[in-house]
Amino acid sequence: MLFITLLTDFGYKDNFVGVMKGVIAGIAPKAGIIDLCHDIPAQDISAGAFCLKTGYAYFPKGTIHVVVIDPGVGSKRFPLVVKTKDYYFIAPDNGVLSLALDELKVLDIIRLDNPAYHLPRVSNTFHGRDIFCAVAAHIAQGIPHAQCGTRIKQYKKIALPKPRSTTSSIHAEIIYVDRFGNLITNICHSNSRKYTQSLITIKNKVIRGIKTSYAHTHLGQALAIWGSSGFLEIAVNGGSAQKHFKAKTGDKVVVKVCR
Amino acid sequence: MLFITLLTDFGYKDNFVGVMKGVIAGIAPKAGIIDLCHDIPAQDISAGAFCLKTGYAYFPKGTIHVVVIDPGVGSKRFPLVVKTKDYYFIAPDNGVLSLALDELKVLDIIRLDNPAYHLPRVSNTFHGRDIFCAVAAHIAQGIPHAQCGTRIKQYKKIALPKPRSTTSSIHAEIIYVDRFGNLITNICHSNSRKYTQSLITIKNKVIRGIKTSYAHTHLGQALAIWGSSGFLEIAVNGGSAQKHFKAKTGDKVVVKVCR
Amino acid sequence: MLFITLLTDFGYKDNFVGVMKGVIAGIAPKAGIIDLCHDIPAQDISAGAFCLKTGYAYFPKGTIHVVVIDPGVGSKRFPLVVKTKDYYFIAPDNGVLSLALDELKVLDIIRLDNPAYHLPRVSNTFHGRDIFCAVAAHIAQGIPHAQCGTRIKQYKKIALPKPRSTTSSIHAEIIYVDRFGNLITNICHSNSRKYTQSLITIKNKVIRGIKTSYAHTHLGQALAIWGSSGFLEIAVNGGSAQKHFKAKTGDKVVVKVCR
Repeated sequence: MLFITLLTDFGYKDNFVGVMKGVIAGIAPKAGIIDLCHDIPAQDISAGAFCLKTGYAYFPKGTIHVVVIDPGVGSKRFPLVVKTKDYYFIAPDNGVLSLALDELKVLDIIRLDNPAYHLPRVSNTFHGRDIFCAVAAHIAQGIPHAQCGTRIKQYKKIALPKPRSTTSSIHAEIIYVDRFGNLITNICHSNSRKYTQSLITIKNKVIRGIKTSYAHTHLGQALAIWGSSGFLEIAVNGGSAQKHFKAKTGDKVVVKVCR
Repeated sequence: MLFITLLTDFGYKDNFVGVMKGVIAGIAPKAGIIDLCHDIPAQDISAGAFCLKTGYAYFPKGTIHVVVIDPGVGSKRFPLVVKTKDYYFIAPDNGVLSLALDELKVLDIIRLDNPAYHLPRVSNTFHGRDIFCAVAAHIAQGIPHAQCGTRIKQYKKIALPKPRSTTSSIHAEIIYVDRFGNLITNICHSNSRKYTQSLITIKNKVIRGIKTSYAHTHLGQALAIWGSSGFLEIAVNGGSAQKHFKAKTGDKVVVKVCR
Repeated sequence: MLFITLLTDFGYKDNFVGVMKGVIAGIAPKAGIIDLCHDIPAQDISAGAFCLKTGYAYFPKGTIHVVVIDPGVGSKRFPLVVKTKDYYFIAPDNGVLSLALDELKVLDIIRLDNPAYHLPRVSNTFHGRDIFCAVAAHIAQGIPHAQCGTRIKQYKKIALPKPRSTTSSIHAEIIYVDRFGNLITNICHSNSRKYTQSLITIKNKVIRGIKTSYAHTHLGQALAIWGSSGFLEIAVNGGSAQKHFKAKTGDKVVVKVCR
């Protein structure tokens, strides 16, 4: 069974997501459709790219990931399908795929300029419906992805802000705040051991060490922990670090490494 | 494969939508269930009717569209199934189907008064679960729709506010605001060409002409555009026209046609 | 066809729910996945328990109900699978299952300590992905539930606040407020007839009698009604009782029984 995931900034207020599923159902009735997330802030390409990066790999091989965060819809930005060993990625060429693709070997990139696999009438404002989901469904039905358009060499890249290291500390920042108010930093899990004995400063407050579970602190206490997507997070046991620290994306976090 | 869509004002806070899907799964386990939208404002029949009108036609033939916006649940309003050439529509007879049915030939209307296809115990407050979804699932399983109750002749109708035309201008209004803050007017795409050279006035501000994509303006600039559901929209490139104009449903829009 | 339901406090902002579905799709591609609800207030075990209690029984026999409201994730609380005649329930052992299980005969309880059915790498913060959904998918694929860990005898219980009866009245409270602002009390439908002639006091206002539908009152008028999940509710016809009475969970409701 083949799966198509949908990641958008469409929210839940309108019928946009439902209509995209209708288009898929009409072309590929047996494809399984899974919502990856629809509540990306409107037109926030970075947030969408982060959501895809931390989510795509949990899906079975062959999954077609469709991303519609598309502030440039109807302009010259091109719709793409990118093939990697295990997945197809379909999205506008605006960088939204690049954090996920950074970790993968890109095997092929096709600009979706073959109208045979679009809806008969393509609007200027809703390519999610008229192009992206139509193409995804055709690929799910067995149409070779390369038939969907013209081969190209490049896709647009964006980058996460990178932490800056000195001999004794790492200057990082918050790149995402989740529903529980956990503050996700841009410090990645690799080389994590040396951080265990650390002082983490955020908003002029200091957290000691990195815990292995929320429950290793008292209720209401702040902690640092390696989060489920591999980044260092600031959390509050039973509460919201976002509220506790009045923190937001972009705020600085300094980790002083104690050896 | 047969699809059942669900359109409600139930939101996401409770288990209402989940429970309706459980009822369908118990009766028609192989039916595909697709959420058209669940965030229609509570008890807003017009908004639900608009959502159905702009969405239903993207689904494959045979789809059963279930609409549960039902402020009169438990009263004398009747639950209906309406058959058209390509779809079934199941809803309370309160007008919520009428904008979609306006464009279709209605082949049959059945009042759902045969309890054989309801849940064994029908509550007075949740016919979405006890009647609408149960009937939809039975029809998906092959029960002829006419077996679900008594044939009737009429369904309740509501209308969108109609724009008023003078020799030189069209007096329209905003009928819907989407998640991006786009302001959808009640001016339909038919006869659109003559509007291309126009002055559009909203909240005492003037927009010149109708663009073919958001990107044909500068970031932050307002524009008019034919939206994906066929209506003239006021948008802001990279922003929200709702915030920009402090506009809401019912606000007036005047299009001065320049020939 | 086998169904897995998901009930969480993850909301819709992140990719948590999507990723859990990816895990299920990879292990049990043919299982039907149904969202019971994801908008339980963060870490609110009682609200999750109530949502499960009022929803689980509408699903077909064999359904696997997965509940991830898990403030103790990574601590010593254990993940469980509980088998009853018709269902499997998979959740942390924190009481979230107990309101549903109260009404059922528990046939078996297994602590999920067999890592063979977890994801290869188990995080300390997201057992919904790494344990609960992985186990649910393996059970859907036919793995005997008892193979997933060690048999135990007990699960943690919580209770709804119970109404207190005197000879002439029932002292109850609001235990849930739904999306429409209906105030659900802890008075259960059993023995309902004697309540029909009653005076219901809430926030110093009195409602006379129990109606059989919203429409038996005028628009904007408050009423009491037996709700769809079997509890006495306070509602406002065409409005929100929550706003009308400025009421919230925990507020007192007194029913004076008139015989």
